[in-house]
Amino acid sequence: MTLSTLPACELVERLTRGGVTATEVAQSFLARIAECDSSIGAWQHLDPAEVLETARRLDAADVRGPLHGLPIAVKDIMDTHDMPTAYGSDLYRHHQPSWDAAVVAQLRSLGALVLGKTVTTEFAYFKPGKTANPWDVRRTPGGSSSGSAAAVAAGMAPIGLGSQTAASLIRPASYCGVVGFKPSFGRYSLAGIKPLAHSLDTLGWMARTVDDIDLIGKALSGRALTGLPATGIQGLRIGLVRTYEWPLAEPSTRNALETATELFRRGGATVSTVDLPEPFAAMADTHAGVMAFEAARALAFEHASASDQLSPQLRALLDKGLAIDESSYFRLQDAAVACRNLLRDLFSSYDVLLAPSAPGEAPTGLQATGDPAFSRMWAVLHVPCLTLPGLTGEEGMPVGIQLIGSYQCDDRLLCIAKGCMDALNGALSQSLPVERHRR
Amino acid sequence: MTLSTLPACELVERLTRGGVTATEVAQSFLARIAECDSSIGAWQHLDPAEVLETARRLDAADVRGPLHGLPIAVKDIMDTHDMPTAYGSDLYRHHQPSWDAAVVAQLRSLGALVLGKTVTTEFAYFKPGKTANPWDVRRTPGGSSSGSAAAVAAGMAPIGLGSQTAASLIRPASYCGVVGFKPSFGRYSLAGIKPLAHSLDTLGWMARTVDDIDLIGKALSGRALTGLPATGIQGLRIGLVRTYEWPLAEPSTRNALETATELFRRGGATVSTVDLPEPFAAMADTHAGVMAFEAARALAFEHASASDQLSPQLRALLDKGLAIDESSYFRLQDAAVACRNLLRDLFSSYDVLLAPSAPGEAPTGLQATGDPAFSRMWAVLHVPCLTLPGLTGEEGMPVGIQLIGSYQCDDRLLCIAKGCMDALNGALSQSLPVERHRR
Repeated sequence: MTLSTLPACELVERLTRGGVTATEVAQSFLARIAECDSSIGAWQHLDPAEVLETARRLDAADVRGPLHGLPIAVKDIMDTHDMPTAYGSDLYRHHQPSWDAAVVAQLRSLGALVLGKTVTTEFAYFKPGKTANPWDVRRTPGGSSSGSAAAVAAGMAPIGLGSQTAASLIRPASYCGVVGFKPSFGRYSLAGIKPLAHSLDTLGWMARTVDDIDLIGKALSGRALTGLPATGIQGLRIGLVRTYEWPLAEPSTRNALETATELFRRGGATVSTVDLPEPFAAMADTHAGVMAFEAARALAFEHASASDQLSPQLRALLDKGLAIDESSYFRLQDAAVACRNLLRDLFSSYDVLLAPSAPGEAPTGLQATGDPAFSRMWAVLHVPCLTLPGLTGEEGMPVGIQLIGSYQCDDRLLCIAKGCMDALNGALSQSLPVERHRR
Repeated sequence: MTLSTLPACELVERLTRGGVTATEVAQSFLARIAECDSSIGAWQHLDPAEVLETARRLDAADVRGPLHGLPIAVKDIMDTHDMPTAYGSDLYRHHQPSWDAAVVAQLRSLGALVLGKTVTTEFAYFKPGKTANPWDVRRTPGGSSSGSAAAVAAGMAPIGLGSQTAASLIRPASYCGVVGFKPSFGRYSLAGIKPLAHSLDTLGWMARTVDDIDLIGKALSGRALTGLPATGIQGLRIGLVRTYEWPLAEPSTRNALETATELFRRGGATVSTVDLPEPFAAMADTHAGVMAFEAARALAFEHASASDQLSPQLRALLDKGLAIDESSYFRLQDAAVACRNLLRDLFSSYDVLLAPSAPGEAPTGLQATGDPAFSRMWAVLHVPCLTLPGLTGEEGMPVGIQLIGSYQCDDRLLCIAKGCMDALNGALSQSLPVERHRR
């Protein structure tokens, strides 16, 4: 087993105990990238010599951080002082930020090694970059965190940083068969991340295990990297939420939810169907309106000065946003607040909600990144969400299932997700996506 | 009367009706700047030739925006694609952003003319820039929006953009004798404004009249520039909140509140004392803790890579923030949420709250920008705040009084503030600060 197949927690263990060096780990991931990225195209910027130089410097330093040498892939919507950052737009092709985004600076302070910048859609909206799905290169990896999802899935990085405004973490993670995590809104600093919609934008990340997701959360929170307790799912109260978008769910997603329900029940959890009250029916549209209104403000400069260099779909979003009047926007925000309160009450009866991550398997074609419908509601409700891999669809592609926690109860969600992933993996005895992809 | 003494609303009226040109208005303000800025030092970047060139281009354009040629001063914490932006730090002395901050792009799209960048404290925290108070150059103008406050007070710009995380709009506006407005948290896009604390940072602005404040709010909201109704203050229920910081209030501030109370009563309002419940006693400290925790994340890059180039007071803030553990931070946030709910209930009995804007007159000396104590609580409570000029202290310097509205009821606050300002001005028959300063 090469180093690049190991999960982040095990890499960190070996790196900090001195079993392996940052240089060896970097070499392993660079070899994996050289082996498979020509067909996947996950990286927007990657300079192997620079990576090795940084790894050697880390190894030579007197003090080793708790994430010493851990390679991370950084979505190219996040600023890096030493690598160009183009935000997925030709407008910023040669843009070189003067700083690191807060998340990058924090992880680097702890010893993490930035491998490079991963492909994002244009300004984290819809227009795809060059990345293909590692499981089938004729299919989209999803977006907007396309490159980070593909890199983690293909074993080119153990951790991929991303961000979500609509579905930009959960959907690509589902399509690429990795764990994707969108924390509660507002939990982590977005300094140095290009804004799209200020009441929705959320930093998150992807990995191949729930423990690896937890590792990065603890690191960013400045907590000890103690690991997640294995509590299992015995007695867990799971609410199955098909959502008002259910008609969009394809057989692959319907089957995945059924299989998960069956496996969680076998593991001792109770799974009962939750019919969301009527106000939730409007939440996907509420999200879309809020996002358009705010994006038209956040990208006011680009829209006013270089509209012809924006994609038609982005221009349409910004025009839509400018056409929404402020009082309508406030009504949308009020409706979201009302549903946040209803959802909070719901969590007195359920420990976690189970819902679709995406309509189905990754669609064929690289001209679009798939439908965000199944994430919009949770995004505007600000709750933590996590998609688990392990299940596959009718054509053998990954299909995620989404777990949703109560606002600001991110730790509890991760704990539950670990139990759920064990229940899925134990029953399925399935290999990790990265290994399967190698075959 | 020269053009530079006119309030923004009247300038806009003349500019859009064609009575004067953007070039003539720009020339008038540039003349005023040439006349008085050598002793005040409000500007971080100002290029008169560039300003006149832009004004001529605006005048020559086929289409005139609703803010055609209105000069604005932009705090140097906000990015401008055509002017350097140093964030008040030597670290970014030669920094040239690639974009305009959203607020700048929006106002420019409507025809506004950016005169230049105004002095900010270091990263909008405490270390002062070069600006002096226009009423007495031995005194601080307050901070962090020091240059914008001084520029508006001295008639060098009709509108000054600023931002507030603790007291950065209200305090300098109070010290400089202008109207300062901090909208509800989250109301306007912060894209392109250097973050300091993400759950507190708020865009705001300063002007010489409440109508001018309203003009910019309507413009940024994409609403028609219809003007504020003159509703008066007859029957208005005003709650006088001395706050738990009252022991810090100097005689000048105590007298200003007494005078205001008397004048508002004469105008037909009822003014009754509000004793805030005990949980509010912790809010100033709650604010300080939240700010430190979040600033340590937002400035992680600068702290990690160039700590020696930060001021001792900023380093102390960031070190304090890193020493706060995440669970303590969440407890602070929970306490703030509880007080926000209490405050919302309070507004069923009062139309507006009246409170100190600052401890007193602007302190002597330019080594510090004064105490933010009287704004911290309102900042962490996310409510809209406005400071009104017109009253003076024991040494003849301006002393503001602060009006506080209910969360997201910004329009109502501005309406009330207009009535209150009329009540103050009418009774005092006092000249505008800018005119007084000219004497």
